[in-house]
Amino acid sequence: MIKRIGILTSGGDSQGMNAAISGVVKTAIAKGLEVYAVKDGYLGLVNDWIEPVDVNFADSIINRGGTVLGTARLPEFKEVAVRQKAVANLNAKGIEALVVIGGDGSYQGAQRLTEMGINCVALPGTIDNDITSTDYTIGFDTAINIVVEALDRIRDTIQSHNRCAIVEVMGHSCGDIALYAGIAAGADIISINEAALTEEEIAAKVKEMHDKNKRSVIVVVSELIYPDLKKLARLVETTSGYVTREAVLAHIQRGGTPTAMERYRAFQMAKFAVEQILSGIGGIAVGNVGDAIVARPIMEALSIPRISRKDILADFTNLNDNIYKK
Amino acid sequence: MIKRIGILTSGGDSQGMNAAISGVVKTAIAKGLEVYAVKDGYLGLVNDWIEPVDVNFADSIINRGGTVLGTARLPEFKEVAVRQKAVANLNAKGIEALVVIGGDGSYQGAQRLTEMGINCVALPGTIDNDITSTDYTIGFDTAINIVVEALDRIRDTIQSHNRCAIVEVMGHSCGDIALYAGIAAGADIISINEAALTEEEIAAKVKEMHDKNKRSVIVVVSELIYPDLKKLARLVETTSGYVTREAVLAHIQRGGTPTAMERYRAFQMAKFAVEQILSGIGGIAVGNVGDAIVARPIMEALSIPRISRKDILADFTNLNDNIYKK
Amino acid sequence: MIKRIGILTSGGDSQGMNAAISGVVKTAIAKGLEVYAVKDGYLGLVNDWIEPVDVNFADSIINRGGTVLGTARLPEFKEVAVRQKAVANLNAKGIEALVVIGGDGSYQGAQRLTEMGINCVALPGTIDNDITSTDYTIGFDTAINIVVEALDRIRDTIQSHNRCAIVEVMGHSCGDIALYAGIAAGADIISINEAALTEEEIAAKVKEMHDKNKRSVIVVVSELIYPDLKKLARLVETTSGYVTREAVLAHIQRGGTPTAMERYRAFQMAKFAVEQILSGIGGIAVGNVGDAIVARPIMEALSIPRISRKDILADFTNLNDNIYKK
Amino acid sequence: MIKRIGILTSGGDSQGMNAAISGVVKTAIAKGLEVYAVKDGYLGLVNDWIEPVDVNFADSIINRGGTVLGTARLPEFKEVAVRQKAVANLNAKGIEALVVIGGDGSYQGAQRLTEMGINCVALPGTIDNDITSTDYTIGFDTAINIVVEALDRIRDTIQSHNRCAIVEVMGHSCGDIALYAGIAAGADIISINEAALTEEEIAAKVKEMHDKNKRSVIVVVSELIYPDLKKLARLVETTSGYVTREAVLAHIQRGGTPTAMERYRAFQMAKFAVEQILSGIGGIAVGNVGDAIVARPIMEALSIPRISRKDILADFTNLNDNIYKK
Repeated sequence: MIKRIGILTSGGDSQGMNAAISGVVKTAIAKGLEVYAVKDGYLGLVNDWIEPVDVNFADSIINRGGTVLGTARLPEFKEVAVRQKAVANLNAKGIEALVVIGGDGSYQGAQRLTEMGINCVALPGTIDNDITSTDYTIGFDTAINIVVEALDRIRDTIQSHNRCAIVEVMGHSCGDIALYAGIAAGADIISINEAALTEEEIAAKVKEMHDKNKRSVIVVVSELIYPDLKKLARLVETTSGYVTREAVLAHIQRGGTPTAMERYRAFQMAKFAVEQILSGIGGIAVGNVGDAIVARPIMEALSIPRISRKDILADFTNLNDNIYKK
Repeated sequence: MIKRIGILTSGGDSQGMNAAISGVVKTAIAKGLEVYAVKDGYLGLVNDWIEPVDVNFADSIINRGGTVLGTARLPEFKEVAVRQKAVANLNAKGIEALVVIGGDGSYQGAQRLTEMGINCVALPGTIDNDITSTDYTIGFDTAINIVVEALDRIRDTIQSHNRCAIVEVMGHSCGDIALYAGIAAGADIISINEAALTEEEIAAKVKEMHDKNKRSVIVVVSELIYPDLKKLARLVETTSGYVTREAVLAHIQRGGTPTAMERYRAFQMAKFAVEQILSGIGGIAVGNVGDAIVARPIMEALSIPRISRKDILADFTNLNDNIYKK
Repeated sequence: MIKRIGILTSGGDSQGMNAAISGVVKTAIAKGLEVYAVKDGYLGLVNDWIEPVDVNFADSIINRGGTVLGTARLPEFKEVAVRQKAVANLNAKGIEALVVIGGDGSYQGAQRLTEMGINCVALPGTIDNDITSTDYTIGFDTAINIVVEALDRIRDTIQSHNRCAIVEVMGHSCGDIALYAGIAAGADIISINEAALTEEEIAAKVKEMHDKNKRSVIVVVSELIYPDLKKLARLVETTSGYVTREAVLAHIQRGGTPTAMERYRAFQMAKFAVEQILSGIGGIAVGNVGDAIVARPIMEALSIPRISRKDILADFTNLNDNIYKK
Repeated sequence: MIKRIGILTSGGDSQGMNAAISGVVKTAIAKGLEVYAVKDGYLGLVNDWIEPVDVNFADSIINRGGTVLGTARLPEFKEVAVRQKAVANLNAKGIEALVVIGGDGSYQGAQRLTEMGINCVALPGTIDNDITSTDYTIGFDTAINIVVEALDRIRDTIQSHNRCAIVEVMGHSCGDIALYAGIAAGADIISINEAALTEEEIAAKVKEMHDKNKRSVIVVVSELIYPDLKKLARLVETTSGYVTREAVLAHIQRGGTPTAMERYRAFQMAKFAVEQILSGIGGIAVGNVGDAIVARPIMEALSIPRISRKDILADFTNLNDNIYKK
């Protein structure tokens, strides 16, 4: 029977990573395992930054943002020789399996290590919700709450001043942060990479709202669509008649205390991951479907196409267009 | 084609009700309907407290707790004569359908009204998560976040003082608030009506943790299990050796700004409800299954047995028992 | 005896303005006065956007961000003819005095109106804390809490990733937001207009921290110092060795639920203002000194020189320099 | 010159204690001192639970609630022999001075130790604001924010339901939490130990509000006034006509992330304390007067009479009485 497992976080940090770490440690200890924490992701695995942790550690981190283990980039982990060093370090300590929490970039490494004899189970840790093998990634729920809180605050000001605000949120190629937070906050216009509006379309829609005497307008856009947000704001201001301000929410979206559901799901995924490892299973990606926790092979998980949210966005846009149409 | 719809909230208030109201109003207006708000639930329906609302109203309430429409109890609504008065009021204003947001007590009224010619669509509004036709009720996500925040604060204090805290949360016959919030907050012991621990069992478990030098212990219990929480605290204190304090979270759990996911789901359910009404459908209960919005006949919805969370709780309890077993 | 007073908000919105409005309305009603709300500041005064409000209104706004009365710019208010129109509107309604909540730009208008027979009392409403006749402006306490929360979140991420973050906060010519929030959040370097560091100085300080293996560095800077924050971030990155990210907190700082002390002080200032009006006093600026509420003539208030916080900043900078000096 | 100082927290925990600890550690290290943390207050001093800490420790705790050092009761510290053990432990480690953070019960110990050759500087750490040598204690600002947030949530519910709520808050013999939070939250009736209303007076006032059709009423009371809150709620319900609920906020008031001003002031007090120690001064109590940090001899500090807030409360009560008088 397996005696020792390791845990690491990789890729961009996200809220709930610590809750997942806590769940792994507590479950493993309850099952009689020893748990080792790896600092700074795959980099720490290669550099042997690996230390045992206990249940007090698990208890002390559950509500903290970011990852207490640290994370780092290590492109060289694609090379066999580098990974062999990691495996040697693990073997030397008697660590037979790993839980890896990170974005889908981290999943490849977990698959490779599994093939080299270290059973790895991957948990989806990223705010972007861009991992297709789970309904929600660990971090997404907290990130959209932070964005909604920011949008609520911004609306206080633009409603006071009769203005328009254009707010850029994170999400790379996945518009879920903009879509969910925008709808939740009562945004008026949303533009995401999967279905981006042109700058002129945004300006025209804002103008229609101004023509109907709307007091304030919030436009939520994903990052990487509009190269110059100030320029977009000027266009909207000129076209619509609203004084228009832009805001980039940036890195406040990735830290902070994780939400209840984030921590609940992180715990359940973590527990599931340890149970799989105890069953001798590796090379799988864990996720949720509604309230259930599920898993599938990592390579299969990575090949699942994204469910398009274009329909949800189109419905939302039609709705607002119809409210303010002439 | 239908021209006018009404909206009311009924039963205990919950966060996200206003987001649902907002979603109903915006969707209806976008579809060309006029919307009337009913004050104080079925009581206002009978007393003709019914007024038109517009999109500015919808925009102004999305992030507010409670229900701006008010809610009230009206047991007499079970009587036909009383409901006939409601129907007459609606007919007089040309209101042909209603969205009813409330607990399952409110669903019965919605079904009766549908049978009397007013198509009603019911949305699940309660913090208790005790409506079986939806994964999550509107209010639950916010309530567990409030409880987790309170538990985090309480842990700060008991961890500073080397103590035990017993915290009672809402949930009547449904232990989901205690279960989800307790797991999310890293509680050590959870007791819910579906699988209640005896007072002696709680005391014994706390003692085991004290024997293992645990710095602090949090016990989360649902309301209506232990008649005298102070007495339970004294038993735990005497048995375990921890100074032990009790806290009843009470009504702070039902108010406050709704979370992002609360508002997102409330909006999607509201939109779905209006679309059903426009298709001429009534007598249905709307809910979510994962990320999807679904509906079924109200009477069918009310007869769905509860999914037992006993397994989830048993797993959690085993895990903690094993960590602190001698 | 005076019978009717008006209230307006002017200049940039800030949290706590609504609590002040609420306090004015409640105090005035308790004293037997009628209260009129003016929409959109001096603009509404001139355009006769003036309506009576009651105690329910006062109760419903106390915890909301921004100003429910709206605010607008009206440079023309400097002209006598424009102000005469305002006075005529007030006279027509029998409104004999005004409470004006706003930045010191608004104070001039209040003084002019007083000279024209409308007794005005000014309350300091701005997040910038740049009004010298008060210890703290209404909005400042909430703004620094928002900034500290954002800095806490950003630290979660940069601590996870071993990075540096440069965060720009509001404050125009007054560095108090950067200074108080920076110290409260445990920032490592602070630069404000009153004592701005050069870009090279910042880079050199960050490098010293990197040389001492500090895991993360937070630099807080006031707006309007560094014309290109991205360029500063690149310089810091190149010089120090940290991956470095910049963030502009922008308009999230001005909205949101006001803090307890914000609302407490706003209420006490509002109550004091109404009492002064009842004593027949106008042309004064209200403020706090510690826990006491005080007032002085507006023109005197506007001429008070700013207390320099350079000493506080210098002490802070010395402290951090000494910790990380070679 | 002094080389080593210690730090401990004593009495009830409060938010901001960790920020004060952080400030002591950073200032001391910047000044070239070594810093030792004492676990669990005077108990740890006697038991020699004393360990060195560094700047990473200081950085990691600034935003955490409670006290990471722990706190405990030790009535025996009044005995000379017990204190001699503490002094011996300090001498053995070369620790020449102490910063003590706690309530005024802790101040006596600090004075005694100073007399025995260990220069002690006391910081006011308690949520109750009952230390007269400071405007605000460390913890008070955060506590009133938590109470206001709870009152906001409770108002959402009672406003939805047309009810009255009676909310008990902490504060022992000092009513400041009830007074400041009650006024900030727009409470309708406040009762504190310094000027307690009888149960009948409360019921009569609530009835007047009900008679004027007020939708909801919030009554805030300090702990230790009404022996049976349920009984008071029943009296209010019977007398007034409102359905009436009681809530005891209990221990959620003492934990949680400290506010910006809490952390700012805690830092400035901590820095001042270390500077005094470096000047060879002991036996003093540090506090704030407005924005300034001050100190005076501990024995003098303990003898300052409390500023009565009765006037502030009387003004508030008159105001509400007048609004709802017949």
